[in-house]
Amino acid sequence: MTIKVAVNGYGVIGKRVADAVTQQADMVLTGVCDIAGDWRIAVARDRGVPVYSATGEAGAGSLEDMARGADLVVDCTPKGVAAKNAALYRELGRKFIVQGGEKHDVTGHSFVAEASYASALDRPSTRVVSCNTTSIVRVFGALRRAGLLRRARGTLLRRALDPWESHLGGIMNTLVPETRVPSHQGPDAQTVDPALDIVTMAVKVPETLGHMHFWSADLVGRPSREDVRSVLAASPRVAFVQASEGLGALNAVKERMLDLGRPRGDLYEVAMLEDTLTVENGELFCAYMVDNQAIVIPETIDAIRALTGAERDAALSMAKTNRALSIIAA
Amino acid sequence: MTIKVAVNGYGVIGKRVADAVTQQADMVLTGVCDIAGDWRIAVARDRGVPVYSATGEAGAGSLEDMARGADLVVDCTPKGVAAKNAALYRELGRKFIVQGGEKHDVTGHSFVAEASYASALDRPSTRVVSCNTTSIVRVFGALRRAGLLRRARGTLLRRALDPWESHLGGIMNTLVPETRVPSHQGPDAQTVDPALDIVTMAVKVPETLGHMHFWSADLVGRPSREDVRSVLAASPRVAFVQASEGLGALNAVKERMLDLGRPRGDLYEVAMLEDTLTVENGELFCAYMVDNQAIVIPETIDAIRALTGAERDAALSMAKTNRALSIIAA
Amino acid sequence: MTIKVAVNGYGVIGKRVADAVTQQADMVLTGVCDIAGDWRIAVARDRGVPVYSATGEAGAGSLEDMARGADLVVDCTPKGVAAKNAALYRELGRKFIVQGGEKHDVTGHSFVAEASYASALDRPSTRVVSCNTTSIVRVFGALRRAGLLRRARGTLLRRALDPWESHLGGIMNTLVPETRVPSHQGPDAQTVDPALDIVTMAVKVPETLGHMHFWSADLVGRPSREDVRSVLAASPRVAFVQASEGLGALNAVKERMLDLGRPRGDLYEVAMLEDTLTVENGELFCAYMVDNQAIVIPETIDAIRALTGAERDAALSMAKTNRALSIIAA
Amino acid sequence: MTIKVAVNGYGVIGKRVADAVTQQADMVLTGVCDIAGDWRIAVARDRGVPVYSATGEAGAGSLEDMARGADLVVDCTPKGVAAKNAALYRELGRKFIVQGGEKHDVTGHSFVAEASYASALDRPSTRVVSCNTTSIVRVFGALRRAGLLRRARGTLLRRALDPWESHLGGIMNTLVPETRVPSHQGPDAQTVDPALDIVTMAVKVPETLGHMHFWSADLVGRPSREDVRSVLAASPRVAFVQASEGLGALNAVKERMLDLGRPRGDLYEVAMLEDTLTVENGELFCAYMVDNQAIVIPETIDAIRALTGAERDAALSMAKTNRALSIIAA
Repeated sequence: MTIKVAVNGYGVIGKRVADAVTQQADMVLTGVCDIAGDWRIAVARDRGVPVYSATGEAGAGSLEDMARGADLVVDCTPKGVAAKNAALYRELGRKFIVQGGEKHDVTGHSFVAEASYASALDRPSTRVVSCNTTSIVRVFGALRRAGLLRRARGTLLRRALDPWESHLGGIMNTLVPETRVPSHQGPDAQTVDPALDIVTMAVKVPETLGHMHFWSADLVGRPSREDVRSVLAASPRVAFVQASEGLGALNAVKERMLDLGRPRGDLYEVAMLEDTLTVENGELFCAYMVDNQAIVIPETIDAIRALTGAERDAALSMAKTNRALSIIAA
Repeated sequence: MTIKVAVNGYGVIGKRVADAVTQQADMVLTGVCDIAGDWRIAVARDRGVPVYSATGEAGAGSLEDMARGADLVVDCTPKGVAAKNAALYRELGRKFIVQGGEKHDVTGHSFVAEASYASALDRPSTRVVSCNTTSIVRVFGALRRAGLLRRARGTLLRRALDPWESHLGGIMNTLVPETRVPSHQGPDAQTVDPALDIVTMAVKVPETLGHMHFWSADLVGRPSREDVRSVLAASPRVAFVQASEGLGALNAVKERMLDLGRPRGDLYEVAMLEDTLTVENGELFCAYMVDNQAIVIPETIDAIRALTGAERDAALSMAKTNRALSIIAA
Repeated sequence: MTIKVAVNGYGVIGKRVADAVTQQADMVLTGVCDIAGDWRIAVARDRGVPVYSATGEAGAGSLEDMARGADLVVDCTPKGVAAKNAALYRELGRKFIVQGGEKHDVTGHSFVAEASYASALDRPSTRVVSCNTTSIVRVFGALRRAGLLRRARGTLLRRALDPWESHLGGIMNTLVPETRVPSHQGPDAQTVDPALDIVTMAVKVPETLGHMHFWSADLVGRPSREDVRSVLAASPRVAFVQASEGLGALNAVKERMLDLGRPRGDLYEVAMLEDTLTVENGELFCAYMVDNQAIVIPETIDAIRALTGAERDAALSMAKTNRALSIIAA
Repeated sequence: MTIKVAVNGYGVIGKRVADAVTQQADMVLTGVCDIAGDWRIAVARDRGVPVYSATGEAGAGSLEDMARGADLVVDCTPKGVAAKNAALYRELGRKFIVQGGEKHDVTGHSFVAEASYASALDRPSTRVVSCNTTSIVRVFGALRRAGLLRRARGTLLRRALDPWESHLGGIMNTLVPETRVPSHQGPDAQTVDPALDIVTMAVKVPETLGHMHFWSADLVGRPSREDVRSVLAASPRVAFVQASEGLGALNAVKERMLDLGRPRGDLYEVAMLEDTLTVENGELFCAYMVDNQAIVIPETIDAIRALTGAERDAALSMAKTNRALSIIAA
């Protein structure tokens, strides 16, 4: 059986989800919906994707039309909009996925494939958590489940804007720290893995390529660097990169993704800088890169399978997704 | 007959030429050669491309080995290196193409498909001119051949570095004008079209996406805006973009290329900002974007056909190249 | 007699005008007025400057109070606000100056000291034109009055934001051209010097230090480079800088201003890059830097003297201002 | 008695030390020495400061001449050069200070006024530690001496280049982490305060305004936020800034320094972002800004008094320096 998937909101996440759906053997993209009528949605139309209009534009079907024709709607609209759309999806009896800009309560379930696939099975809806939270659960969830993590404290350097919008308002030659400490990512990670003891500070930095996290963590016992490394290497969506090979900066990692032929140069993995991975006296230090536009795409694909029950085994779903997206095992 | 093409120098231009060769029905990529052994060349090796070593690395063939196995070598090594390699190619009786970093005298012929395809036919070698010069010949060469151009004066805003190297040395929150006025692009354009009266000033700007040119030109007679526009629209490698559709800045144009699925988001066309195209009292004003990493790729492919005589008609070669690279007609 | 000057709007221009007024022997600062109550106005208060509130904050005098106590109000409020305040100043019989964000019609007179001091004498009000226009009138007005200029065509690279606000919305790793061609500076320059034949294009660039202009101009006859240079050298507010001395980029010029002890590192002069100044076959090419925060400050000081008639000779007023602000003769 | 101070190396630190010396009632600047003959040293010469040449330029005295005429030389030459000059200073029997680019062993003593003034008294030489280390000792040294600190873990965001050199090689739209973890600042802080338990990671960010540190620390006992805050408020060189007043980003803090009339907009204090200061369950989180060009200037002035014994009390020296430089008490 092929899952009929529709995508509402054709922005940086929506267009990637739409493309990724078309690459899955067990899914079909039945439509995309947006409010914008500019060059972005035109690209979808030119590819023959049915385009619906959230604002009732003449000649196009409505969001409701699109939802009726699908098994599941992935809602990638801006923060707060998906929460409002949820009522419609429920009314129509359609399963749905919202993104990390929404609160946990919108669906009552938060999703990272490695941590909460099983509890998402057959549910009516879930929330794929934000890019930063996804990376935290992948890395520190794995260490916690391996019995190695006591707590982690992180500094999150956040790209100021996405490239497509970088002419519309950004920051220039400055740093802008978030004044709220801790920032929201720690509590957010607990919506997926309540046993995580995570505290973060965040700062906006003047670049557009992605986020970078710097961590110090207290470990349980005195594991070796290799103990820690092997746990991360076993994760299906953490990849190691080496500065010694020229991959010691965000721009170089992105160039490699483009060279690999990834669509839009997308980095789906947490890119762990292996050179920074340090374990000393029960403490772990490390830094990694998060591609905020791409990291949640494989999670969203897995969430589709979990909600629809199309694949009941988390590992098998992740393997299918990873293969379809050419994701690199560490 | 399939043309056997080898590429020396696997940097921003070389890797794109290599990929473009593999997309042509009448060409085959017989090898790439570089001095670097890092992640970049590894991508080629992983794709099964024969990799040669310019420095005699153990286990790899040499540049000479590669050249012997090819009909033609495209040399994309850094400025000045190709000039030295020319002797080897000549000694081996291999045709070759150098890039715009080299001087005209290295091959005695300079190439832009629309202007000098015919004179390149069956030659032993040619030089594909630089990104900026290519754009100038496409735009102002077309206007001159149409009898519309008297002279053009331009300001060239040059991206400071390419993205892959943007951690290695750039400029930050400043502008760095070239002190030599006129800058070299005017005389360089005359190596392709000696009748062009072009003077340029250049300035390095703190971005990595590409160049942008701003022009004022004196026209012959009092043509209308539509007269000028129709000449440019007839060019096979000038595309119009509209600010009113959200494509009024470099980053948005690049995003569109990524959305179109272009490899590495490459923009092969001169992207003319249609909103800026103004004709008043015999003067033309306009601005366009040049993707310095990509614009010479289709020219290089055409140059391969011209030198080998595989296609004797410029328009037919350009049509083949454009189709293979999905280039947008204006 | 000491001129009592009040400043409305304590932003990047207002605070500099206020400071410059206090440095003139023939002026006294009687107050500043703003709507903001944050750290910026606090600096003024800490220096003992009477602070008024445009929004009727408790405990502070009003704009009307401030205007009554002054001979002249310099209105440096954001675009469009000064036009509304003009009625109040007129009602109170106070002279006033608006800045270049306002239209010419608000006062019916536009001011650059070298060009329109005499016609401003004893007027009730004037408009000090914008930073870009001021630089154009200084440079090309001087060449025109010397009988050397036929026309000039320019590309204006505009800093995206001022440093103080660069965390509030800017552009990142992109270029944003103005779609309206010609941009407004040519017609604006004609409000001061109607005989100027100037056309400009403009583009926003990702830096915060100031603007940079690149020009090609047609000259009258065949003057030598020295002919042109000596006209500019005679201008009281054009300074030459040399790339050969390390001053070939915006940041270096700004550093020198800081080293000279200028308040806020202000550059009041047009900084002409001498290396770029080229004259060939009756054409002139040159590039210069404009400090958008500072260049209109000396003009505003002169405008105060012209409106009040405190000094009837333009050259003498400029000499006083230049001395007080340590402006460098070319 | 007036201390005769000479400055070798007239770069970003040297020129500031020279200017600060001239502002002290008990010091006189007897000369500056550099290898460069460009605009930078010209500013000093124009102010009447005796200029010596490190390269034996004709007509100028030598470094040895300068040292002979001084009681003490502050050596601000690039990393490694001062270590070589030390022999000369010793041979001539002159006291000297090196900067934080040099190793501790060059002088055998490392200096931060609040921590090691007493042990520097009457010594022949000392090393003023680097900007980052100075900030660490000010903040965490104070907490440790107050008995509140167990350990601190920090992420250091380092400005990529200083403004004056930002056209010469920087980073663009990327982040470049240091691969060595821990970075050197923790061990360096222990050269001043051996009891500090500090570990840091560092990353180069694309801005030029200064560094920013983000910290998580384990405290002794369960002190309140006010306990921690009052210790920092008592420090003579830590100043609190508030995002709620518009001072929540590097650029805004720098603008305020310029508005205050500080030379070159220098920020001598650690600027602690009060909004980020958080104490929970025995942990401290905070972020602060470090002006890498300015923070060591007051320390250097104090070091001059300590070495020469001109003031035997650390607090009194700091008070003199702070008053002369208008340093803000927290």
